[in-house]
Amino acid sequence: MPNAKRGRRSGAAAPERTKHVLKIIPLGGLGEIGKNLTAIEYDDDIIVIDCGLKFPEEEMLGIDFVIPDVQYLIEKKHKIRGIFLTHGHEDHIGAIPLVIPRLDVPLYGAPLTLALVEHRMLDTRTPYKPEYNIVLPGQTVRAGCFEVGFIRVAHSIPDSMAIYVRTPLGVVVHSGDFKLDMTPIGGTEGTDLASLAALGKEGVTLLLSDSTNSERPGFTPSEAIVGRTFEDIFRRYKDRRIIIAAFASNLYRASQVFAIAARFNRKVLLLGRSMVSYVELAMKLGYIDAPPELFVTSQEADHMAPNRTVVLTTGSQGEPFSGLVLMSKAEHKQIRLGDRDIVVISATPIPGNEKLVSNTINRLFVCGCDVIYERDLAVHASGHASREEQKILLNLIKPKFFMPVHGEYRHLVRHSQLALEMGIPTRNIFVLQNGDVLELDSGGKAKFAARVESGSVLVDGVMLGEFEGSLLRERKELSESGVLAISLVLNDENRLVAKLQIDSRGSIYGFDSENMRPDVETAVERALEGVRAGAVDRLSLPSEIRKKIREILGRNYRAYPGIIPLISIIGAGDTVQAQEKESVPKAKRTGRPRRARNQKKPAPERNQ
Amino acid sequence: MPNAKRGRRSGAAAPERTKHVLKIIPLGGLGEIGKNLTAIEYDDDIIVIDCGLKFPEEEMLGIDFVIPDVQYLIEKKHKIRGIFLTHGHEDHIGAIPLVIPRLDVPLYGAPLTLALVEHRMLDTRTPYKPEYNIVLPGQTVRAGCFEVGFIRVAHSIPDSMAIYVRTPLGVVVHSGDFKLDMTPIGGTEGTDLASLAALGKEGVTLLLSDSTNSERPGFTPSEAIVGRTFEDIFRRYKDRRIIIAAFASNLYRASQVFAIAARFNRKVLLLGRSMVSYVELAMKLGYIDAPPELFVTSQEADHMAPNRTVVLTTGSQGEPFSGLVLMSKAEHKQIRLGDRDIVVISATPIPGNEKLVSNTINRLFVCGCDVIYERDLAVHASGHASREEQKILLNLIKPKFFMPVHGEYRHLVRHSQLALEMGIPTRNIFVLQNGDVLELDSGGKAKFAARVESGSVLVDGVMLGEFEGSLLRERKELSESGVLAISLVLNDENRLVAKLQIDSRGSIYGFDSENMRPDVETAVERALEGVRAGAVDRLSLPSEIRKKIREILGRNYRAYPGIIPLISIIGAGDTVQAQEKESVPKAKRTGRPRRARNQKKPAPERNQ
Repeated sequence: MPNAKRGRRSGAAAPERTKHVLKIIPLGGLGEIGKNLTAIEYDDDIIVIDCGLKFPEEEMLGIDFVIPDVQYLIEKKHKIRGIFLTHGHEDHIGAIPLVIPRLDVPLYGAPLTLALVEHRMLDTRTPYKPEYNIVLPGQTVRAGCFEVGFIRVAHSIPDSMAIYVRTPLGVVVHSGDFKLDMTPIGGTEGTDLASLAALGKEGVTLLLSDSTNSERPGFTPSEAIVGRTFEDIFRRYKDRRIIIAAFASNLYRASQVFAIAARFNRKVLLLGRSMVSYVELAMKLGYIDAPPELFVTSQEADHMAPNRTVVLTTGSQGEPFSGLVLMSKAEHKQIRLGDRDIVVISATPIPGNEKLVSNTINRLFVCGCDVIYERDLAVHASGHASREEQKILLNLIKPKFFMPVHGEYRHLVRHSQLALEMGIPTRNIFVLQNGDVLELDSGGKAKFAARVESGSVLVDGVMLGEFEGSLLRERKELSESGVLAISLVLNDENRLVAKLQIDSRGSIYGFDSENMRPDVETAVERALEGVRAGAVDRLSLPSEIRKKIREILGRNYRAYPGIIPLISIIGAGDTVQAQEKESVPKAKRTGRPRRARNQKKPAPERNQ
Repeated sequence: MPNAKRGRRSGAAAPERTKHVLKIIPLGGLGEIGKNLTAIEYDDDIIVIDCGLKFPEEEMLGIDFVIPDVQYLIEKKHKIRGIFLTHGHEDHIGAIPLVIPRLDVPLYGAPLTLALVEHRMLDTRTPYKPEYNIVLPGQTVRAGCFEVGFIRVAHSIPDSMAIYVRTPLGVVVHSGDFKLDMTPIGGTEGTDLASLAALGKEGVTLLLSDSTNSERPGFTPSEAIVGRTFEDIFRRYKDRRIIIAAFASNLYRASQVFAIAARFNRKVLLLGRSMVSYVELAMKLGYIDAPPELFVTSQEADHMAPNRTVVLTTGSQGEPFSGLVLMSKAEHKQIRLGDRDIVVISATPIPGNEKLVSNTINRLFVCGCDVIYERDLAVHASGHASREEQKILLNLIKPKFFMPVHGEYRHLVRHSQLALEMGIPTRNIFVLQNGDVLELDSGGKAKFAARVESGSVLVDGVMLGEFEGSLLRERKELSESGVLAISLVLNDENRLVAKLQIDSRGSIYGFDSENMRPDVETAVERALEGVRAGAVDRLSLPSEIRKKIREILGRNYRAYPGIIPLISIIGAGDTVQAQEKESVPKAKRTGRPRRARNQKKPAPERNQ
């Protein structure tokens, strides 16, 4: 198996001060789908490629999204020459509004990518104005000791690029997210194989390549295939209203829908906040060419025959408040679905969304409409290269060293096995995890160097925090067992001077506060006896109460709600504070959490 | 589209008193995977087919499992002639320990099925002893006006049967869970096509058929294919330790592992509580034939060369405390995984478990082992018929009426579309949901009758309750925003006589109780001013406090923890109870919740 640091990696080499080495430092996107961010460092220069967010895992209760811990970059911000963006998906640009004000470095990207960044910046109402530098495929930019160049690649959003970096120790190529679509929409948006081949001929030291689909054999179908499927659907269901749900950022998908709608003499109704804003932006910038009269409002659509309209909406991932989901629940303000409708889900579920999508499909069937989804027809094409395409890239680039990026650990391993099959020796293949550092020296050698700080910053509403999991553990406990609050008013002699007050949240039958009052009273009385007898000191009273209540409720009901005792002492100056928590320690905050007021939730859009 | 009651179905026909009709009443298993239970009723006789549990949905926080609401059956228990079981999977027998004591009716099933029921009964320590009646394929049983017969079918557990019922209005066939494995393990365990054909020839009024795989084209592979894959793996990885994770209930899978291990001269180490208990039971009853010396303990395995052992373990669904998952986290007591190990995940993820399985695979790769899973090889075969097999059953049975069962709504719809393709007219196809009643009359007509009570009973630890979702809503709110408890001690004049006590759980940075004390104090003081000024009455004080705190915390932090105010009054006889909840109403319990003490959590085993 290729080089990988396994298990506890804290035993890595001690920090080194060696000069003249090239460091590749992934701070996000390895061992996960999302929050892509890789730094490339040589002496006093750093460049950053992408700066994305990730959508929370299920167990991250109440968290809106996650961004990479960029402490390493903050400490070296004077060295950073710029953030270079491969494309405009959330998992590549979504962390910028939270990160860029702290780094204060220029941004480089293609026109659409930067327009999307600007849109996000406005959305979050951050006062900071980044320096935007538009770059195009074929251009190069000087950034400290680096020369950074851009090569057009096909992906599921226009203006996607691979990035190459000429460093003092050779060329590093970062594929970005790519596929090798040979029949791209628009005809000129395909991957520029010739430029990649030219780089390969020049000699590439290191390739970082997209691993998302490394478990998928063969080739990813062309986006054009989806258009042909749409045509079939428009032809077959010519008497029905057609509702298509797709990723709002997939502007190729949208343009295909618009072109086919025009050909079949249907008007388009756009629904879903992000669908409308992506399409508006793309039309303004010229990425979509559709006549304004193609579009109708929902009021206009209401007065048209159903088979003269097509609805393009969000919700292909079953997102709770998206267009399609509201329709499936008969809660959408404009659209009521019935058996005259045909719904096309033009996407596959992102890992983790399977159940949401499946529930949406079930509800759509209950509405009586026909539903066309992944198993049926070619209604979606991935934006990522499958194994044969990954091999072609490896073949063109012929890198000395290989490092798979963008993917869960299984995808990275699979991609590395593929490089091995292609003849790259094991010792030259490096499977990194976030925070690992790959170091190339002037002698042509590569090795793991000391790890750097990395991790996840969880964003919950307007709050930012870095946690060691204890807050999430608390939330999980609350969600599974509920909570019981008790208030005691004691006199100086540790006797109750008012009736015990009890209330609960989220506990199942038997734990309504009044039902369990006798048990709770018994438990509290026992704890107080302990204090009065001097066996328990008064400061330990809260934990003693928790212990006694847990014992009695556990025995009688086999359930363990969280217990919050609040103790007031009357007739004395001192009050015992029930602040100390149960077994769960307080969330340890390692960073500098701060408020980011007025920050809106992100649009439910991500890499597809 | 076939007959389906859509949208609000409360407008169904009023309760009817018609005699001499045959009613098919699904109380579980329709529109869901799990808790299968169908009642068949004619005049004064009812029989029940299966009585299963379902594993909770993600959003059912803290719930262990779910059983069908059987209120309808309880009210008519004097009519019930028996519960007839198709096979021994949890989703077909798992609710019996909780249901049978309330119905007190005999159980009918094949030997293994009843042994598994008995095992569950002992596990839950219910004092009730059911009447067990062993039945075998080919037998018939008289049950009131019904004659009930059994036909052997292939599935992923031995002793699976289809059930047919001769009723006064014709024959009803229930497929159970089935596939048409033509090369079954053991050679005699295949589906008895001849008996099914004979029934078809006799004439079948209604077929209820397994829809689980109705989205899957073609044929489900034979279980024997998996054995061949295992052989290849044993041959290819002859120098490695092999770890196979599978469903504990899939005794065919286990026997194949045992046979191949013996042939390749490896010893078997069984790990995982349910794996050990299923295999023990199956060996005791003769369903698995393996010499005792084939098995080793983990101590013995420790002293053997890794390539002389194979580990068969639980955890194929990524279940949190299962064997494989503990190994992947390096937390297993007996097994440490490394690069000399090859792990085979011999199952596909059940919908909803995708992420758990994927995370397990990632961790296994991080351990350094090779992992073989679904995308690689034929390491698993489903136990359910694919579309071509479903067609063959329809062709053999040639039912007049068709009703798809066992599946999410999308599966039922797909199965009904297939019946339509097979020539069953739309008016004779009925897509029901739980609680719908299909009524057949003596004139040979079928229609929807008035719905009956149906639903889910959530089981949390030792508690049973029927909820209208509010408890889960409370838990969800807790899990997303945390909770803040405040204790006030007031005198007769509604003034604080002790320091406010505050504590919180699960709230993010900024909501540590002491940080927000000034805001909370301000809010409480405002609420008290309102009371003192007579603008708010004292009984409304808790809700006034919540309102004021929400306002101030919402404004300052944009976060909304649940708030529990506890109020004690000193110097007066009356105490205001802060029992009334926030906006969330109390869980409404419609049934008769009760405690089921000593009931253990179910083994993590279900239909595959």
